[in-house]
Amino acid sequence: MIFSSRLIEEAVEAFSRLPGIGRKTALRLVLHLLKEAPEETHRLADAIRRMRDEIRFCRICYNVSDAEVCSICGNPARRHDIICVVENIRDVMAIENTQQYAGVYHVLGGVISPLAGVGPEDLTIEPLVQRVATGQVQEVIMAISPTVEGDTTIFYISGKLKAYPVKLTTIARGIAFGGELEYADEMTLARSLTNRLPLEKYMLSSQADPSPDT
Amino acid sequence: MIFSSRLIEEAVEAFSRLPGIGRKTALRLVLHLLKEAPEETHRLADAIRRMRDEIRFCRICYNVSDAEVCSICGNPARRHDIICVVENIRDVMAIENTQQYAGVYHVLGGVISPLAGVGPEDLTIEPLVQRVATGQVQEVIMAISPTVEGDTTIFYISGKLKAYPVKLTTIARGIAFGGELEYADEMTLARSLTNRLPLEKYMLSSQADPSPDT
Repeated sequence: MIFSSRLIEEAVEAFSRLPGIGRKTALRLVLHLLKEAPEETHRLADAIRRMRDEIRFCRICYNVSDAEVCSICGNPARRHDIICVVENIRDVMAIENTQQYAGVYHVLGGVISPLAGVGPEDLTIEPLVQRVATGQVQEVIMAISPTVEGDTTIFYISGKLKAYPVKLTTIARGIAFGGELEYADEMTLARSLTNRLPLEKYMLSSQADPSPDT
Repeated sequence: MIFSSRLIEEAVEAFSRLPGIGRKTALRLVLHLLKEAPEETHRLADAIRRMRDEIRFCRICYNVSDAEVCSICGNPARRHDIICVVENIRDVMAIENTQQYAGVYHVLGGVISPLAGVGPEDLTIEPLVQRVATGQVQEVIMAISPTVEGDTTIFYISGKLKAYPVKLTTIARGIAFGGELEYADEMTLARSLTNRLPLEKYMLSSQADPSPDT
């Protein structure tokens, strides 16, 4: 595409480096900003820059945070003896949005993936072990994607935590609500058959019990 | 959605004010930036801010420009006696991308639309009349969207330019290349029948003649 302005060219270029934004969309965004008041653009530019420069990671759970300790770890109303281990902060948000979890988190920063060059030392596994080693943790819930890498990570972490008297669980895998059996992959279907639940327990769990102590 | 960080909240909020970007996409962009090196984010923030603060509008044609006169108006190789009148800078880019037009432009900044509160005085019609009044313009091509507002604008401008010895034309309307007759709207089909071309002229125009002097 031909731009008559180097400034526009640079802005389009910068926008189009974002995921899911091509040059046409980038141009649309740039032209939109040009139409709006300059304050709108300043607000966007400042919010982006400040977010990147001032964001911190909670020194306990590695979730994003505005302070040294995030609002979840710093909340005395939450159960600090249950840790939910997730891959990234997006997963924290997803679980928080369910409003069904009252414990705290531990953000790994990814999963073990030899192909992508991610080893255990690149993740926050050691700090997790230290949190468990304090003896104040009753349960560690592995809320990690059910992929080969995810399962490897779960296996590795469970090995590291074996020495401590802590209950290890994973989130339930199975057919999603509203999902149709015929479209489920064989792996999921096979596992959901193996791990079938007594009907009473199913009825119980559908009454949304937030406590994981069942 | 629940964010544990006010900084992220603000960045998501700022991104989601852009057209076509909802809160989920905005969050994805923010998390992407958090994963990348800080320089990437600085580059984006700076490019956006600089674009908005330093961009100028060509004092001749009102196209966006890095200097007082845009690169099209400042190009001696172009025909300055033909002015193509367009609604906005996106249309300039669209026409430039065809690489078939060698004249200059005039960006109106919109079309006359009483419903949207846009009157002739909100557009750059007066500067266009002044350009024509210099007597150095042979032809004014109206490349304005074929809507009710567009046609009103064309009618208004043609009235203003009536006093000057200048040829007024509009871009051809009709069935698009690759378009199928059965899906064309009645208005377009009816106009394309009324303004039918002799076959020789059609054959000639399909040989891409950039000069509008035929």
